[in-house]
Amino acid sequence: MKKFMNTADNFLKESLQGFGAAHKDIVNCYYDPNFITRASPTKDGKVALISGGGSGHEPMHGGLVGHGMLDAACPGYVFSSPTPDQMLAAAEKVDSGAGVIFIVKNYSGDVMNFEMAAEMMSGPNASVLTNDDVAVEDSSFTTGRRGVAATVVVEKIVGSLAEAGGSLEECKKLGDKVNKNSGSMGVALTSCSVPAAGKPNFEIGDDEMEFGVGIHGEPGRRRDKIKSAQEVTSELLEAINEDLKPEKNEEILLFVNGMGGTPLTELYLIFDNAKNVLDKKNIKISRSLVGNYCTSLEMQGVSITLTKLDEELVKHWDSSVLTAAMRWGM
Amino acid sequence: MKKFMNTADNFLKESLQGFGAAHKDIVNCYYDPNFITRASPTKDGKVALISGGGSGHEPMHGGLVGHGMLDAACPGYVFSSPTPDQMLAAAEKVDSGAGVIFIVKNYSGDVMNFEMAAEMMSGPNASVLTNDDVAVEDSSFTTGRRGVAATVVVEKIVGSLAEAGGSLEECKKLGDKVNKNSGSMGVALTSCSVPAAGKPNFEIGDDEMEFGVGIHGEPGRRRDKIKSAQEVTSELLEAINEDLKPEKNEEILLFVNGMGGTPLTELYLIFDNAKNVLDKKNIKISRSLVGNYCTSLEMQGVSITLTKLDEELVKHWDSSVLTAAMRWGM
Repeated sequence: MKKFMNTADNFLKESLQGFGAAHKDIVNCYYDPNFITRASPTKDGKVALISGGGSGHEPMHGGLVGHGMLDAACPGYVFSSPTPDQMLAAAEKVDSGAGVIFIVKNYSGDVMNFEMAAEMMSGPNASVLTNDDVAVEDSSFTTGRRGVAATVVVEKIVGSLAEAGGSLEECKKLGDKVNKNSGSMGVALTSCSVPAAGKPNFEIGDDEMEFGVGIHGEPGRRRDKIKSAQEVTSELLEAINEDLKPEKNEEILLFVNGMGGTPLTELYLIFDNAKNVLDKKNIKISRSLVGNYCTSLEMQGVSITLTKLDEELVKHWDSSVLTAAMRWGM
Repeated sequence: MKKFMNTADNFLKESLQGFGAAHKDIVNCYYDPNFITRASPTKDGKVALISGGGSGHEPMHGGLVGHGMLDAACPGYVFSSPTPDQMLAAAEKVDSGAGVIFIVKNYSGDVMNFEMAAEMMSGPNASVLTNDDVAVEDSSFTTGRRGVAATVVVEKIVGSLAEAGGSLEECKKLGDKVNKNSGSMGVALTSCSVPAAGKPNFEIGDDEMEFGVGIHGEPGRRRDKIKSAQEVTSELLEAINEDLKPEKNEEILLFVNGMGGTPLTELYLIFDNAKNVLDKKNIKISRSLVGNYCTSLEMQGVSITLTKLDEELVKHWDSSVLTAAMRWGM
């Protein structure tokens, strides 16, 4: 395992401290329990968005806290669910009276702990569960489909509605819609190592790839010899399209996501190869996002997410956002 | 070698095509010869900034083309200098009459080819040479010190002055000042592979790091066993401070740069560890930048850059910028 770290015990805390110091104009970091809020308090009457999950997927979710996206994020230890006390402390800090939306990726531990926090809360709240990964039903840590990169899209779009004054019910409804309109699938070339474990999460041969991999290195559909980027891209899109069934001339967001160790050149190459496939099917790339957003530590891998757009979703995708990892329009 | 690619011959073209398609609101890509310009033409009377170098360091330089930074970038093949015809074609497209500044990293091939382009140009032009890497004098492809991540800082600050109407002479002078005010040094945990070579640029043991590594994997000061992040950070800062000699209470930009395969968590951890060192020396972190900006393909590595700031530099650092990789203030 090759990492820049001191001790596994201090890994998360030192990283959060650095994040907080580097972006003190955007976020505040709190410790014991760990959570991140916006630097400016949530304005009265605005629904507060809280997400969280195991660390190791940065910039998701801490890098998505700020104007137009999340009000708070709760980072668990690497690849471990955050605990209800983190969520409650975050909710207490950011709930301005209009209620709290929890955005939860579908992993058993996350779901259980966010449910406990929701039950313990006195104020109104609702949850949006993301399960966009079309690769497999049920997995190492999941019943049903896994929540992966479309969570970023959900957080952007619901964050915009909340900023514009949407109610708790409206935010919940829009979040569910974005999740339903989205499909993702990923592939890994290399494994990744959790600091405390000190060894790779899974083994993979020098000429192999894991097709349909999860963001914790969970098994996908199959282990295969490395294919060309165009073959990989075509197969990912075929699986997503089978699920999403976009229509001819439908407008979509094409999101090419790196898993942490993948250079931008390769992500843009995948974007090009995906455009080849979508152009032929007359599916229109109306919006795009390329970069390492929903990562798996240092894994070399890529996932593709498609989100079917309509006027409402485009409006909230385009609206201004100012976070450590995503910023436009202001 | 594990990469998302089709053929080594098409690697750059497909990647550029994807980049152009994903950011068509910001850039235009041209092929044969390859160069990237802003989507909107350079306004009359504005000095045009052009940079370039081998590919494999993305987002530098194509991702830095846009309002407030570069007018054009010329990507060579991976780790190969761009050719004078690329630079001339780019200059012809973006020179609006006020002249052209070439921002050139100090590698023999880049320097020679940019000099040839400058000689062949009819209009006024000047060059800013970056050589911020304090690790070694002379290297595999360099006489003198290597130009590395401070090039991003030079491009931001000179880009701002040019946008504000600075003359060719003023831009050249400010670029030289930023370079002189900056020092960088890097360390690698893993190697990287050029697509056409198909094998790692250098070999490194499972328990080793290369201290003072270059952005093409050139040897640094020494090969060593892996140290703790705090030890690595302290040693990098010691080398930089020895060169830059920042004074007590001096304000600096702290730039923690990933080399392509390094997760954000580790970059923020290094930022935290660097802050420990700088706080003790009463050097004030006035501005910060953390992310993968000046990369070496999929290399797991990090570099630290310090730039000594004054009022002029802060003003131009803070001014609005809108590129694929850096955007704020608009």
